[in-house]
Amino acid sequence: MADEKLPLRSENYSEWYNQLIQRAELADYAPVRGCMVVRPYGWALWENIQQALDKRFKATGHQNAAFPLFIPMSFLEKEKEHVEGFSPELAVVTIGGGEKLEEPLVVRPTSETVIGYMYSRWIKSYRDLPVLINQWGNVVRWELRTRLFLRTLEFYWQEGHTAHATEQEAEEETRRMLDVYTDFAVNEAAVPVIPGMKSATEKFAGAARSYTIEAMMGDTKALQSGTSHNLGQNFAKAFEIQFLDQNNVLQHCWTTSWGLSTRFIGAIIMTHGDDQGLKFPPRLAPIQVVIVPIFRSEEERARVMPVVEQVKGMLSDLRVKVDDRSEVTPGFKYNDWEMRGVPLRIEIGPKDIEKGSVALARRDIPGKEGKQFVSQDGLAETVKNLLEDIQKSMLEKAREFRDANIHEPRDYAHLQEIVQDGWAFAHWCGSSACEAKVKEDTKATTRCIPLEGGKSKGACIVCGEPAEYKVYFAKSY
Amino acid sequence: MADEKLPLRSENYSEWYNQLIQRAELADYAPVRGCMVVRPYGWALWENIQQALDKRFKATGHQNAAFPLFIPMSFLEKEKEHVEGFSPELAVVTIGGGEKLEEPLVVRPTSETVIGYMYSRWIKSYRDLPVLINQWGNVVRWELRTRLFLRTLEFYWQEGHTAHATEQEAEEETRRMLDVYTDFAVNEAAVPVIPGMKSATEKFAGAARSYTIEAMMGDTKALQSGTSHNLGQNFAKAFEIQFLDQNNVLQHCWTTSWGLSTRFIGAIIMTHGDDQGLKFPPRLAPIQVVIVPIFRSEEERARVMPVVEQVKGMLSDLRVKVDDRSEVTPGFKYNDWEMRGVPLRIEIGPKDIEKGSVALARRDIPGKEGKQFVSQDGLAETVKNLLEDIQKSMLEKAREFRDANIHEPRDYAHLQEIVQDGWAFAHWCGSSACEAKVKEDTKATTRCIPLEGGKSKGACIVCGEPAEYKVYFAKSY
Repeated sequence: MADEKLPLRSENYSEWYNQLIQRAELADYAPVRGCMVVRPYGWALWENIQQALDKRFKATGHQNAAFPLFIPMSFLEKEKEHVEGFSPELAVVTIGGGEKLEEPLVVRPTSETVIGYMYSRWIKSYRDLPVLINQWGNVVRWELRTRLFLRTLEFYWQEGHTAHATEQEAEEETRRMLDVYTDFAVNEAAVPVIPGMKSATEKFAGAARSYTIEAMMGDTKALQSGTSHNLGQNFAKAFEIQFLDQNNVLQHCWTTSWGLSTRFIGAIIMTHGDDQGLKFPPRLAPIQVVIVPIFRSEEERARVMPVVEQVKGMLSDLRVKVDDRSEVTPGFKYNDWEMRGVPLRIEIGPKDIEKGSVALARRDIPGKEGKQFVSQDGLAETVKNLLEDIQKSMLEKAREFRDANIHEPRDYAHLQEIVQDGWAFAHWCGSSACEAKVKEDTKATTRCIPLEGGKSKGACIVCGEPAEYKVYFAKSY
Repeated sequence: MADEKLPLRSENYSEWYNQLIQRAELADYAPVRGCMVVRPYGWALWENIQQALDKRFKATGHQNAAFPLFIPMSFLEKEKEHVEGFSPELAVVTIGGGEKLEEPLVVRPTSETVIGYMYSRWIKSYRDLPVLINQWGNVVRWELRTRLFLRTLEFYWQEGHTAHATEQEAEEETRRMLDVYTDFAVNEAAVPVIPGMKSATEKFAGAARSYTIEAMMGDTKALQSGTSHNLGQNFAKAFEIQFLDQNNVLQHCWTTSWGLSTRFIGAIIMTHGDDQGLKFPPRLAPIQVVIVPIFRSEEERARVMPVVEQVKGMLSDLRVKVDDRSEVTPGFKYNDWEMRGVPLRIEIGPKDIEKGSVALARRDIPGKEGKQFVSQDGLAETVKNLLEDIQKSMLEKAREFRDANIHEPRDYAHLQEIVQDGWAFAHWCGSSACEAKVKEDTKATTRCIPLEGGKSKGACIVCGEPAEYKVYFAKSY
């Protein structure tokens, strides 16, 4: 596959994305429309994402559990906004064991309702609070237009669901988990997200307030990459999640939910990828280092391979792959592993063996500039430092790109121009009419009021009325 | 909850099982009939099982991936035995996004068909083989009689699916994974399973040959605890999984599948549990050590708690819980954590602090015999050794119980007697008529022809005809 050229990003970003995912064997289309198969290389990336998040969830006191896939249709109807938001997207089981079911079962699109029902049974007293549970699993939303990772009928995610005694605790939890997502995105994925609050139009169906981390993709479109919702008492009232407080008075809980999905893989691909293919951040890369042995004869192979194995042994703390295929050339392998986004390549040939050296090639710096010859002595240290440097450089580069494509519009005409190929950061009065006008005129939506720099008095960029904050407008996935 | 008595196993084994799971907060019933919620304590056990297995899968060259939840109905029909086996148990999605679907979608009961379809697209050449993939996920089978963990509509499992160039390699893989399950069951779960081959009647729908690990529960019933199937070329032919061999000839692959599910949690509960409650093997226990501080006043509490924290710090390699609840007595806590199966309890009170000692109480040895007072010096070492000893003792005890309840019948009348409260190990001619007769007369089925001691010439215990092997007959879950 690596001998055919990928489409250029500048010519067809969408085709670049689709073809790259399949060529790199991250994922494939399933036989059912809009569903995907996550292949081993893609799933290994997801497992690394899971580990990085799960560690943070447990460190903040959460435990994992598993709630059922099927939800009685009547449950969704208990929260008015929620059912309006999700009912057009449901997959419904109507037959079980050969018989028509009395009540159809929804394949969960998200689990607030069924978890709310269980919490109402488990929570009795203030002593039972807070309940801090997360679930790793699959959910289904019947989307019409699908894209691998970005929007599929079935996708994989985690959904945290917590219940608290006070409004303040629920808000703190919502923000804490947004911080966890931000920390993960920035420090593990090198994706410089902007954390902020969603507008009422863009919030989760049933939430009091939704927070998001927004990332800029390589085509300057925005991608909502994780969300954290303060659900107020909406679900607690719909499902009677109540507790006796310290004064023996029955109170409704305050609940939250927060989720990050396989969509984040799309964020990584489109934040870092270039015309050569994927570019994975070292901390999450399924393969951090690929070793390509170079030989032209069996005799050379016999000299090179023992050193390759020795070098692999030195790097046993890292995720290392030796590409010892004999049916393709080293040049083919270089292209292939660049396309697959491996951060660092080690080349070892007969000359290196004479000199006790190896050649290192960075994925993030193309050509000669990214190549260096180093001693085999202390190689583990050299490689680790280099991987850290790559991680850091990738974040810096993504941040520079993002900042270069965010502009503050002078007026509404300028905003319309900016959002054609970038984000506009401007005052907004908060009315959904102004949001709707921007969407109608440009297809851009409000992405978030950032936690930092969001509070600011001025005049709404759309209607000129007084505004209390600034918001990002952008086209999005 | 811990103040109400559990039913005795000898009086009502089934109620003991059901109530214990709910009281210990391992799982609960979901609002949909036959579905379960795995609560954090139960899911932590499953995560430990997952880690122990996943490590072994990766060490034997397997990679994880994710295949879709939904399978077109027509796929199941491609393998005749398979569809006959599974069609009575299917949950079917007929509505998606508000519209009736042209082709109904089955919620996967197992994934041979959809994975077979993908393999037929991915595998082209002998160079692509073997394909060694595992999936962790959920499946649905519309069971009529359900029991928490043992048989639920939705359950969690792993399913391995591999494709090979030769029949021999497929058989080797099938047996290798049976070995992995046996090693896991015996050495991690202290469940002394018997690995063996299933009869044609009991094999997986679509397999050429099925292997199983069979465990004996505390009521002497058998539990099939994991299976490994050699699928021959059945699915390769149904889904055209083909490859060009080294001579450029198109061949069908040989495939396998193997699975172990949350049912195994039932095996752990019923192998080890006693009238006091759960008894978890230390290697898998969600909490390995519980520390109960003992104090009768705030002054004593202030002296005891710093030492408790210090002891917890010494045991940082282990999964340790400090129960510092003030609303219940130490005696209540002892019963509570015994019921929850924590292998080792550490009690620390004012006297221990004076002496620099702690009290240790083993879950597997009740009363004074299981209790000892040890120095705080070298406590980490003491505790680790004790946990290893508990692990070993639990396996021995389970093995003794199993062996004491397996008998070789003199004749058919004796077999009928034995299987009322144990397993019968006897010659069997291999005919399904004899199997059916035993089932009709006693409700017992053939469990497996064991890999060790299974080959043996004799006369069938049912019909007296020549037999080539011996098989276990037992009632089962």
